[in-house]
Amino acid sequence: MARHGMPLVISAPSGAGKTTLIRRLREEFPHFAYSVSCTTRAPRDGEVDGQDYHFLSRERFETLRGQGYFAEWAEVHGNLYGTPLGPLREMLRQGRDVLFDIDVQGARQLKASLAEATFVFVLPPDMKELERRLRLRGQDTEETIARRLHNACQELREAPWYDFLVVNDDLDAAYARLRAAYVAGTLRPVYHPDLVAALAQGNLL
Amino acid sequence: MARHGMPLVISAPSGAGKTTLIRRLREEFPHFAYSVSCTTRAPRDGEVDGQDYHFLSRERFETLRGQGYFAEWAEVHGNLYGTPLGPLREMLRQGRDVLFDIDVQGARQLKASLAEATFVFVLPPDMKELERRLRLRGQDTEETIARRLHNACQELREAPWYDFLVVNDDLDAAYARLRAAYVAGTLRPVYHPDLVAALAQGNLL
Repeated sequence: MARHGMPLVISAPSGAGKTTLIRRLREEFPHFAYSVSCTTRAPRDGEVDGQDYHFLSRERFETLRGQGYFAEWAEVHGNLYGTPLGPLREMLRQGRDVLFDIDVQGARQLKASLAEATFVFVLPPDMKELERRLRLRGQDTEETIARRLHNACQELREAPWYDFLVVNDDLDAAYARLRAAYVAGTLRPVYHPDLVAALAQGNLL
Repeated sequence: MARHGMPLVISAPSGAGKTTLIRRLREEFPHFAYSVSCTTRAPRDGEVDGQDYHFLSRERFETLRGQGYFAEWAEVHGNLYGTPLGPLREMLRQGRDVLFDIDVQGARQLKASLAEATFVFVLPPDMKELERRLRLRGQDTEETIARRLHNACQELREAPWYDFLVVNDDLDAAYARLRAAYVAGTLRPVYHPDLVAALAQGNLL
């Protein structure tokens, strides 16, 4: 049955295990489309314009942003990054699901520009475990760990408006939850506009 | 993690395969609670009051109905049937999931009395297949089949407001969809009020 593509938006505080869960999801469902972002930062060695990023001047980026060109955008370390809305809508129209691994600020913008998206928040089981995982990485200073924990508290406040909460207490169990959220998300009527139009007339496709 | 019970409401036109799908769901998840209905019909041999049904006089049923006692009610072949809301809310409060195998009229009432329920509509793949399945049963007259098909068209009009649409083109695939809808449904913030309260303060349980 032909359906509309589903934007799947996944957020989590750092240390919740989001990256591992998304890697497993992409392995099981390699059909997810990638959205090529725009950025004002300079290309790094080997990066291809239009493939890794669309590289834009700051002026051009800001003009496009003013025109509502981006589904979401952010400034990171002085560089602007944005997701162009047009190509995204085209991928979705073609029935391709698009995965967004994005922070709560970006997710909030997507909620406004792509209201039909399905939003999943990955949670650590408790704050002690989150702190333990951040320390286990062995890559952060005490100061950085304290900042990450502070940011986590801010991010957790956004979790209640997401569609699905995935607690990552055990990796396999958490993956089963994320997988169910993805599969069930694709069953939402919003992704089946042709079927819904037929049903409204008391018929099937 | 303690959570609130989830009312799972499943509707389908007759011949869509709902009964088989629900049987599989109950086999895999035997923890679903049963809600004991009230009815005005006479007990049949062996039926136990308070176990199979709460048997009520018509007068008593109508008084209770007037007091908003029922989450949903219906008249079938001259007898009244209803789901008492109080015991239902108590089971949900205890964290027990409750499954409703119910027609679209009942589902619409549950949408009003139990707004937090998760609603799943099971669809046949097309009208020809629905007709074929009704004939295959070999238990209905032509007139009954025609009536069932007419009713199916009426019921399909309600499908768009359900949370998840499960097309039953293949039994295993349809069951995987229903299962995902159930598992994902339990991840909705509405069933995790304590967690959501903690998150709103930037914390975990």
